[in-house]
Amino acid sequence: MPSIVAEKVQQAVAILRELDLDCWLTFVRETTETGDPVLPLILGQPLTWQSALIITKTGETIAIVGKYEDEAVRSSGGGGVWTKVLPYVQSIRSPLTTTLARLNPRQIAVNFSTDDVKADGLSHGMMLLLREYLAGSPFAERLVSAGPVIRALRGRKSPGEVERIKHAIAVGDEIFESVARFAKAGMSEKAIADFMHAEVERRKITTSWEWAQCPIVTTGPKSMVGHAAPSNDLTIEPGHIFHLDFGVRVDEYCSDIQRSWYVPHPHENKPGETNPPETVQRGFDTVLRAIQAAFDTLKPGTPGWQVDAAARKVIVDAGYPEHQHATGHGVGRAAHDGGIVLGPKWERYGQTPTYPVEPGHVLTLELGIENLDGRGYLGLEEMVLVTDCGAEWLSVPQTTMMLLR
Amino acid sequence: MPSIVAEKVQQAVAILRELDLDCWLTFVRETTETGDPVLPLILGQPLTWQSALIITKTGETIAIVGKYEDEAVRSSGGGGVWTKVLPYVQSIRSPLTTTLARLNPRQIAVNFSTDDVKADGLSHGMMLLLREYLAGSPFAERLVSAGPVIRALRGRKSPGEVERIKHAIAVGDEIFESVARFAKAGMSEKAIADFMHAEVERRKITTSWEWAQCPIVTTGPKSMVGHAAPSNDLTIEPGHIFHLDFGVRVDEYCSDIQRSWYVPHPHENKPGETNPPETVQRGFDTVLRAIQAAFDTLKPGTPGWQVDAAARKVIVDAGYPEHQHATGHGVGRAAHDGGIVLGPKWERYGQTPTYPVEPGHVLTLELGIENLDGRGYLGLEEMVLVTDCGAEWLSVPQTTMMLLR
Repeated sequence: MPSIVAEKVQQAVAILRELDLDCWLTFVRETTETGDPVLPLILGQPLTWQSALIITKTGETIAIVGKYEDEAVRSSGGGGVWTKVLPYVQSIRSPLTTTLARLNPRQIAVNFSTDDVKADGLSHGMMLLLREYLAGSPFAERLVSAGPVIRALRGRKSPGEVERIKHAIAVGDEIFESVARFAKAGMSEKAIADFMHAEVERRKITTSWEWAQCPIVTTGPKSMVGHAAPSNDLTIEPGHIFHLDFGVRVDEYCSDIQRSWYVPHPHENKPGETNPPETVQRGFDTVLRAIQAAFDTLKPGTPGWQVDAAARKVIVDAGYPEHQHATGHGVGRAAHDGGIVLGPKWERYGQTPTYPVEPGHVLTLELGIENLDGRGYLGLEEMVLVTDCGAEWLSVPQTTMMLLR
Repeated sequence: MPSIVAEKVQQAVAILRELDLDCWLTFVRETTETGDPVLPLILGQPLTWQSALIITKTGETIAIVGKYEDEAVRSSGGGGVWTKVLPYVQSIRSPLTTTLARLNPRQIAVNFSTDDVKADGLSHGMMLLLREYLAGSPFAERLVSAGPVIRALRGRKSPGEVERIKHAIAVGDEIFESVARFAKAGMSEKAIADFMHAEVERRKITTSWEWAQCPIVTTGPKSMVGHAAPSNDLTIEPGHIFHLDFGVRVDEYCSDIQRSWYVPHPHENKPGETNPPETVQRGFDTVLRAIQAAFDTLKPGTPGWQVDAAARKVIVDAGYPEHQHATGHGVGRAAHDGGIVLGPKWERYGQTPTYPVEPGHVLTLELGIENLDGRGYLGLEEMVLVTDCGAEWLSVPQTTMMLLR
C-alpha cells in the first residue's frame, strides 16, 4: 500500500497533466508556525528554512530544503516520493533559480488563492521574496495561482482517504450515542461539552475543530448559534430543542455532523408519548426535506450554488427565515476542507460556489432553523461522497426528531 | 491582573505611538487552519470568516468579524479588549472600507513581513483580496508592513510572559535531570526520546516544537545533527558525546535548551575518574567561552550580528569549523519566536541580524561543534533575558562537561 503522501503526489502529477500546467511550486518556511495546509498531503512533515517543493507535469519531484532537513525529506512518505532533494545552507536563491532555469516551465502554479484557504498557504512576505529571487528572469511573469491544482488534489479523495473519513464518522457516532444517553434536562451546555471531551480523550483522538468550540452545544432560545463556546449558565430545559455540532479527527481525517433532539415538556408530552410538538415536527421535516433536495442535485458537474439553492428554496418556501450560511462544504483533513462551497454567490464565498461537484468529493449537507417556535436552534448536518453518477451517504442520516429522555 | 491579551493590546497602542503609525490591521480568515502567529497575543481565539482586527494609535480597538463570532470576540481577553465589534454576514468589504474611511489613517500597517515569519500571518491570497477591497480608495497606497510593530510586541516580553517562560525552563530542567539519571550506554536515541516524551505527557504539557523531533537526540559520530527524528538504530556508546536539544511549552510559553554529556569509555576513564578526554574538554571549554562571549555583548542596542560574531570568532579562532546556523533567536510562545536573530548576515536570515537587542527580549545562545574528535556533536544552548543595561541568565548555564554514568 502506498502512503497517502505517495498517492497524493502521484495524483498531483496527473492533475498537472489534466490542467496542462508545467510546474507546481509550494514555497514555505517555518511550517510548524504557519503551516501550509497542502504540506501534509504532499510531504507529511514540517519544513523550517525557506523551502521549495516542485512537482512537474513530466513527473519530476524536486525538494529544495535546508541542509538539516535533507534526510527527513528523502524519507518522507516512506521514501522515494521526492526524488531530487537539494539541500542548501546560506540561501535558497541559487538552487531555486537554477532549477527553474533548467525546467523552464511555461507557468509556475504557486500556493496562493484568494478564494480557497486550503490553497493559500503562501504568505505575502514569502511572495515578495519569491518575486525578488525571480526578478530579472522570465519566471517572475509566469506565476499563477495553484488553486485549481490544490482544489482538485484535496477535493478528490483517494479510496484510502474515504476509508479514514468513514472511520471518523463511525467514531463520532459512538460519541453521539453516548451523549444522547447521558444528556438530561437540567444539565448545562458546558456539562455536555465536558462529557463529550472526556469521550474524545478516552479514545486518544482530537476534535475536528478547535477544542473549546467542538462540540457546539445549543439549547433553547437564549443559546448563541454558531461558534460560541458552550455555556455554564444555559441549561437544557423541557420544551427546548437540544442541538450538537460535533466532529472528531481520527488518523488525520475528520467528521462534521449535527444532530437535534426535542426535550419533552411535561405539559405537552404525556408519559410514553413519543411525538414532539407539531411546530417542531414541521420544522424538522422541512430541514430534512431541504437536505434531501440538496442531495438530489448532487452529481458530477453541478455547481455548488445550485446545490445550495435547492435546499434554500425548501426552507424559504416553508416560511422559515433563510439560513445565513452555506448548505455545505468539503471535509477531509479538517472539518472545513477547502475547494467547493455549496453556498450562495455571496462575496464572502468568492468563486467557491461556482466550482462543480466532482467524483471523490466528500461534502457536508447542513441546514437549520434559528429559534424554531421559540424553542432553540434545530439543525442537521450529514456527510456524503460524490460518485460517478450521483452521491452516497457517508453518515447515517437523522430521519426522525429524536426525544431527549 | 489583566490577561496577557489585554496587556499586549495596550502595549501595541504604545508601540504604534512610538513608531508614529496611525493604524495596525491584522487581516485573517480560518485561523484554525493557517493561523496568524500574532492572533494568540491580541485575541486569544480563532476567527473563521474574513476578519479585520484594527488597533489605532489613539487607542481604538475595532474587530470586524463574522456574525457568529461577535460574542466570542467581545469576551476575549476577559472582555473589553476589543471595544468596537462589527459583525457582518455577507461581506467584510463594506464595514472594512467604511471603518478605514472614518479613521483615515496615513499608514495601515498590515500583518506581512519578508523577514519575520511571526509577523507574516497574511496570506498572499488575502493580500490580493485586501487590495481589491481598497481599490479606488487612497488606502490601497498606504499599506505597509506591520513587521516593526509585531517584532516589538512579540519581542518585548511583559513581566507575566517572563514568569511563564521561567516556569517552562524549570519544568524542562526537571526532565533533563530525569533523563540524565535514566540514560545509559546501550540505549537507542529513540529510547531516550520515548522516556522524555513520557515525562512530558505525565505533566500534561507539550513539547516546544514538533513532537517527533523534540527532543533532538544525538549520540556519536553517525548521528544526524539537526532536525532528524531520534533513531532506533543509533545507540549511546562509551566514548560518545551524548547531546539533547529539548524544550517544553507550559501555559503557552516555551523553553529551548541544549545539554551535552560525555559517555566514559572503559579504556580512557578509570572507575571513579571524572574527567572527559582532553580533546572533549577543550571543545566544551571553547563552546562555553563562545556562549559567554555572546552574553557579554548583550545590551540594548547591540545588533544581532554582533552577538553572533563574538561567539563565532571564539569557535573559529580555536580551530573548529564555523557553525552553520545562528548563535541565537527569540523564544516566547514558540521555541523560535520571531524578531531578532543573533546570526550572521546570511541571505536566509534577511534583515533579522541587523535588528537591535531590546530590554525584555528573551533569547537563546546556542553553539556547538560537529563530530568533535569523532565522538559526536557537542552543543550547548542557554536562555537569557535582556535587561535595561545588559542581560541575565534565565537558564542555569551548563558549566561543566557532565559524564553519563
